[in-house]
Amino acid sequence: MKKGETTRQLILDRATELARTAGLEGVSIGRLADDLGLSKSGLFAHFGSKDALHLAVVQHARDEFVADVIAPALKAARGEPRLRAMFQRWTAWGGRPGGCVFVALSAELDDRPGPARDALAAALRDWLDTLATAAKIAVDEGHLRDDTDPGQLAFEAWGIMLATHDAGRLLGDPKVAVRSKRAFDALLARHR
Amino acid sequence: MKKGETTRQLILDRATELARTAGLEGVSIGRLADDLGLSKSGLFAHFGSKDALHLAVVQHARDEFVADVIAPALKAARGEPRLRAMFQRWTAWGGRPGGCVFVALSAELDDRPGPARDALAAALRDWLDTLATAAKIAVDEGHLRDDTDPGQLAFEAWGIMLATHDAGRLLGDPKVAVRSKRAFDALLARHR
Repeated sequence: MKKGETTRQLILDRATELARTAGLEGVSIGRLADDLGLSKSGLFAHFGSKDALHLAVVQHARDEFVADVIAPALKAARGEPRLRAMFQRWTAWGGRPGGCVFVALSAELDDRPGPARDALAAALRDWLDTLATAAKIAVDEGHLRDDTDPGQLAFEAWGIMLATHDAGRLLGDPKVAVRSKRAFDALLARHR
Repeated sequence: MKKGETTRQLILDRATELARTAGLEGVSIGRLADDLGLSKSGLFAHFGSKDALHLAVVQHARDEFVADVIAPALKAARGEPRLRAMFQRWTAWGGRPGGCVFVALSAELDDRPGPARDALAAALRDWLDTLATAAKIAVDEGHLRDDTDPGQLAFEAWGIMLATHDAGRLLGDPKVAVRSKRAFDALLARHR
């Protein structure tokens, strides 16, 4: 990796961490320059504008999500094992310090049209499509019933993830892991 | 209502509207003074500090939620009709312009300890307890099975609400109303 690329990754790692807790509004070129001991002019050279930086943060988060959640889950056996791996990987992702960056950005960007919002919506659609495809494969493998609606299953799995995230982070609910697993098990059982 | 009370309500209405789109960080005494044509000193007299203002916004949102969602739903017949009324009222609440203020605040406050976060967590716990109580009553009325876990049902209903909110606002999913209803119907059917 070239030096410019390494610096860019370093900047985006820090920017994504900031976005998780302070939102994209907390991600400014000035703040990143301070945090990383880089010059503002150097940061401008990498991203050009705050909007371009925010878009890059969303794309970086999506790349992390693909590497940490989707790619490892795709190694699980086709069908129910892969669906379960996706759910478990997602739960681990959302349970990291700072929580799920997509949950943080969804609340912030839903009213703010622009490239960052579009990229976030595209990343979420990709994730729901990935879940739906895994559900469709589970039907083909005979693990789920033929009348399973893969998009519906993906929508409901997403809901369980969102409730798991907020119950854990905001409410500190000690039962959250049990509730989350029971909900997902019941979702699969309903389609079996 | 005294004049001071009316002004306070007016301020909190505007502050809650701002919080829905710009987050609590967007709710400052200076911004509210500008928006409402009031003096900063007058606003300070009402709230004292930014932290007190933020706490008042969360409490105001909770009061609105009680008035718009919980109180009308409690008029529905005990059991499944009341549970359904809660879900429908919540969907209407989350579908208003700007979306659900609690979803916006959850993402913002989950990492920020303090009175506003505590008040938000208390409001969410109250809502989950209200849903669980309605589920318990539905068991007592014979509408749901005896082995229904009311807390689990509330957790899963909350997940459907969160997915409904984000699918509608962020993804503009045209199927969201159908998916949401099917998910809630399936949740009740599983416990019937």
